[in-house]
Amino acid sequence: MTTKKTSMRTHTCGDLTAKDIGGTVTLCGWMDVKRNHGGVVFMNLRDLYGITQIVVRPESPVFKPTDELKSEYALKITGKVVPRPPESLNTKIATGEIEVEASDLEILNTSQPLPFDLGEHAGVLEETRLKHRYLDLRRRKMAHNLVLRSRVAGIARAYLSSLDFNEIETPLLTRSTPEGARDFVVPSRANPGKFYALPQSPQVFKQVLMASGLDRYFQLARNFRDEELRSDRQPEHTQIDIEMSFVTEADIAAVVEGMMSRIFSSIGDTLDAPFPEMEYSDAMSRYGSDKPDLRYGLEIADVSEIFRDSGFKVFSGAIKSGGHVSALTMSGAGISRSLIDRLEETLKKQNAKGLPWIRWSDPAKPESPIVKFFTPEEMEALRKQLDIKPGQLTFFGVGAGYAPFIHMGILRTEFISDKKLAECAGLEKPAKKWAFLWVRHFPLLEKDAQTGRWTFTHNPFTAPLPEETAKLDTDPGNVRSCQYDLVLNGVELGSGSARNHTRAMQEKIFGLMGYSKEEIAEKFGMLVNALDFGAPPHAGIGIGFDRLVGIICGTDSIRDVIAFPKTASGACPLSESPAPLDEAQLKELHLRITP
Amino acid sequence: MTTKKTSMRTHTCGDLTAKDIGGTVTLCGWMDVKRNHGGVVFMNLRDLYGITQIVVRPESPVFKPTDELKSEYALKITGKVVPRPPESLNTKIATGEIEVEASDLEILNTSQPLPFDLGEHAGVLEETRLKHRYLDLRRRKMAHNLVLRSRVAGIARAYLSSLDFNEIETPLLTRSTPEGARDFVVPSRANPGKFYALPQSPQVFKQVLMASGLDRYFQLARNFRDEELRSDRQPEHTQIDIEMSFVTEADIAAVVEGMMSRIFSSIGDTLDAPFPEMEYSDAMSRYGSDKPDLRYGLEIADVSEIFRDSGFKVFSGAIKSGGHVSALTMSGAGISRSLIDRLEETLKKQNAKGLPWIRWSDPAKPESPIVKFFTPEEMEALRKQLDIKPGQLTFFGVGAGYAPFIHMGILRTEFISDKKLAECAGLEKPAKKWAFLWVRHFPLLEKDAQTGRWTFTHNPFTAPLPEETAKLDTDPGNVRSCQYDLVLNGVELGSGSARNHTRAMQEKIFGLMGYSKEEIAEKFGMLVNALDFGAPPHAGIGIGFDRLVGIICGTDSIRDVIAFPKTASGACPLSESPAPLDEAQLKELHLRITP
Repeated sequence: MTTKKTSMRTHTCGDLTAKDIGGTVTLCGWMDVKRNHGGVVFMNLRDLYGITQIVVRPESPVFKPTDELKSEYALKITGKVVPRPPESLNTKIATGEIEVEASDLEILNTSQPLPFDLGEHAGVLEETRLKHRYLDLRRRKMAHNLVLRSRVAGIARAYLSSLDFNEIETPLLTRSTPEGARDFVVPSRANPGKFYALPQSPQVFKQVLMASGLDRYFQLARNFRDEELRSDRQPEHTQIDIEMSFVTEADIAAVVEGMMSRIFSSIGDTLDAPFPEMEYSDAMSRYGSDKPDLRYGLEIADVSEIFRDSGFKVFSGAIKSGGHVSALTMSGAGISRSLIDRLEETLKKQNAKGLPWIRWSDPAKPESPIVKFFTPEEMEALRKQLDIKPGQLTFFGVGAGYAPFIHMGILRTEFISDKKLAECAGLEKPAKKWAFLWVRHFPLLEKDAQTGRWTFTHNPFTAPLPEETAKLDTDPGNVRSCQYDLVLNGVELGSGSARNHTRAMQEKIFGLMGYSKEEIAEKFGMLVNALDFGAPPHAGIGIGFDRLVGIICGTDSIRDVIAFPKTASGACPLSESPAPLDEAQLKELHLRITP
Repeated sequence: MTTKKTSMRTHTCGDLTAKDIGGTVTLCGWMDVKRNHGGVVFMNLRDLYGITQIVVRPESPVFKPTDELKSEYALKITGKVVPRPPESLNTKIATGEIEVEASDLEILNTSQPLPFDLGEHAGVLEETRLKHRYLDLRRRKMAHNLVLRSRVAGIARAYLSSLDFNEIETPLLTRSTPEGARDFVVPSRANPGKFYALPQSPQVFKQVLMASGLDRYFQLARNFRDEELRSDRQPEHTQIDIEMSFVTEADIAAVVEGMMSRIFSSIGDTLDAPFPEMEYSDAMSRYGSDKPDLRYGLEIADVSEIFRDSGFKVFSGAIKSGGHVSALTMSGAGISRSLIDRLEETLKKQNAKGLPWIRWSDPAKPESPIVKFFTPEEMEALRKQLDIKPGQLTFFGVGAGYAPFIHMGILRTEFISDKKLAECAGLEKPAKKWAFLWVRHFPLLEKDAQTGRWTFTHNPFTAPLPEETAKLDTDPGNVRSCQYDLVLNGVELGSGSARNHTRAMQEKIFGLMGYSKEEIAEKFGMLVNALDFGAPPHAGIGIGFDRLVGIICGTDSIRDVIAFPKTASGACPLSESPAPLDEAQLKELHLRITP
């Protein structure tokens, strides 16, 4: 720990142990707790690294001055390291064997009374925590989150550097590109009426770097999206951004798996690599989600074949018009009728028509309003396909396309993510702590609900699967892409693809999306020009760094792993931003505010 | 080099040597040069790592296809590694012992004809280079600059991490703070009429982190300044930003010296650390600059004492009214009368009244229009103080305050920085490659020329020297500060200070600058509030990363070490930013453009 010695301290508050006994030390830190025991003053002196007990005896020259010490005063204390009396040994902290008998004490700074208690679990409004972030970050858990974040970033960087990746900074004052969300813009004083845009990602620049021959790029990049904020969104967020030349998706996957293995091994966990892969279509039909949480089984079944000719028209009708009937089976003892009603309401908001179910308390005597419509053969086939055990309960989804699977997937996620529901469904605590998964081969295109035109599912630069490019002309909706998402415990952690690396293919795909040559040149000129000079095959990925650190730190809110986050309305209560500009500034920028 | 193997290549174009002979390899890269020698095709295949010679013999199945290959086509080539015939061995490149006999060839991408030649020294307009940056960056020197930049960043990070610094990201969407330059602003759609500002530095946030107890912070931070651009300025630039708690300036200096030693040792150079320190007042009076280039001697002398009672009123008059006469002496043989006239013009633009000089071809017979005014005793004293040698020439500066020294300092810099002038003055090539220097104890305050009020010389957060705080009330203009600049070869590389860590001192200094309590709360509330809860003594520095890398790469323009820089007008010819917004976007932002 000698690296943290400074000209003001000999040790930190986390350093001293029995082997330091007898030495004279100087510590700096904050007064955490002060108490008077039979005329002797005891204080806890705290810094980032730990807590050291300070003793001030009545005969000490600094005994009197301890009167004026209050919580969070910054102190410099010199004294002798002595063993603690046996009754006050503390095995829970590293410094628990010793205390420091103060012979000198300097108040480095005083403190106002605190607006809230720094105790770990104090129920303070988030707005108040953010306004006094300098106090909030003194909590051990919060400070630890930021230290861990720094360490994870360091591991990622060291790992990528060891593979000869170069970290290259791309511009933050750049040009708007249509990537799905709104851009933040920056007026240019030197160019009245013109604006820079803050990047939603370094996507186009990193592709240009590949065209530049830079071969292996990474960046811990700041991205900006002017979206409606939700609990897990911030207007600026950080991404581990990677791009490689002369590769296929498999190379990217290997790099990411190696990086994640290093990161998780630093917290003592071993990952199984390579990570499992799943076709997008499988993820959708087996889990009703493109980011299934594989810590849990709870697989969805397609029971359409059983009910194709059923007398129950709700099922057979949907199946005959090309739809499906899906089934999700779990332990049913804890699932009440009122819970079923509540789940049905949830699904109805997602356009489900209802939530049929069968309770198998005794599999031979299924209970449900719908069993009367089924033949004994249908019931037997169902029991067999679902491998029904006594006490289970099956939910059904009915509809077109992936809808019946998505509806069961929503139920699955509800049961997994809510502790109480998981108990109701008898879900066991997962054996696996970290379930990584690659979801591959997303559709290249989907119909935009508003315009009816083809649009990209992830980004417009993703390449179609080489063996399916012929279908671009005949059946573009069924072309699969080189898109792969990285999923961890049901969270989409990253998204990558092999890119279109020829101008011809990129323009063809822009064309399918309805862009004219002129629009392509106007909006994507930089990219298509770069592709036109021998750009190499390349692929890459962007991994949400805030989310990754949040998952590792075990917090639901990425605000707990960002030093100075914004509130849900995009404000910073600490700096009081955003703020109005004065008239002179607006005039210089050639701007006027309109109502 | 096996780390760079991918699923498309077995080796890079820089890997293969004699020990690979006999093996079959697959390489990917760009066609650099193609020539036909007696019916055999030779090509140079190039990637980031090197160049490999490819041979295609007439009997090869891919002989015919080489016809269509043009410069900068992206190729994948498989073949056998064979020794080069003795006459074509190339000892200049790593792969010069071998060539690859192509048996398979795939065109991965074609290329348009290049708009300019990629030869290292092609005289291409910078605008054109930036527009086709993906080609410009294929030049070995440019790519090497970015690789080196990444490596230097990695060394800085690893070093700081080894000292338990945490890299903490501070927000880029924040609030305007008055730090000298104009802010770029970002309208908030969610908060009509309000704006974020992009940070000029993380200064206030890093001080808040110290108040948060985070002890040791660093960040490779992006900073933004909306200034008139000059050749060495960019609207966004990168800074190695450091802040520590419970330290004095000496701790910061030690950290920076250690970091620089690591960085320079990675390019094979050993630095002398600790770096020399110089008082600001000494730097000004001995070198006429607060960033003297100490690779050269060429010290300025103060000869005022000699001429205090001189009959030459230009000198004695200035001295009697409190001013000084300075002298700069150098070899004079190469300095013509017309050069002296030119230098005089330069100084007159800096408010010098003239440029007196004495030529000492024979020191006993000085030549100059002014010697007739001097007594033999004055001349003798001058020769003695300046230690005049035959053939030298002395320039004089006259005026109040530091002005006569600054004028000589400007001459000194002219002679040092211009190769031709250095030759004229007989300057020898410096023995030292890297001259680092700390310039310390800048004045805390200076008078603002426009308002006549006290203002900060560097930033408003710098602490006064503790032993001079009493003078804040009586003689604020003569209070020295804890400000220290890091100078390398005459370039200001970084600027740091110990900060005001109590609210009382920070408010006192804001008060001296004329801020009312209300203005302090409005503009600096976040900082003074944080100081008010036991903020620790802290100090830090910001080091210009672009400049540092530029100096290491030996380029005068930081644009050569930034992947995608802006032009002098703040434009990016590649992405064509900044660009107009459409009406809908402006409306959403509640903005209108004014003329």
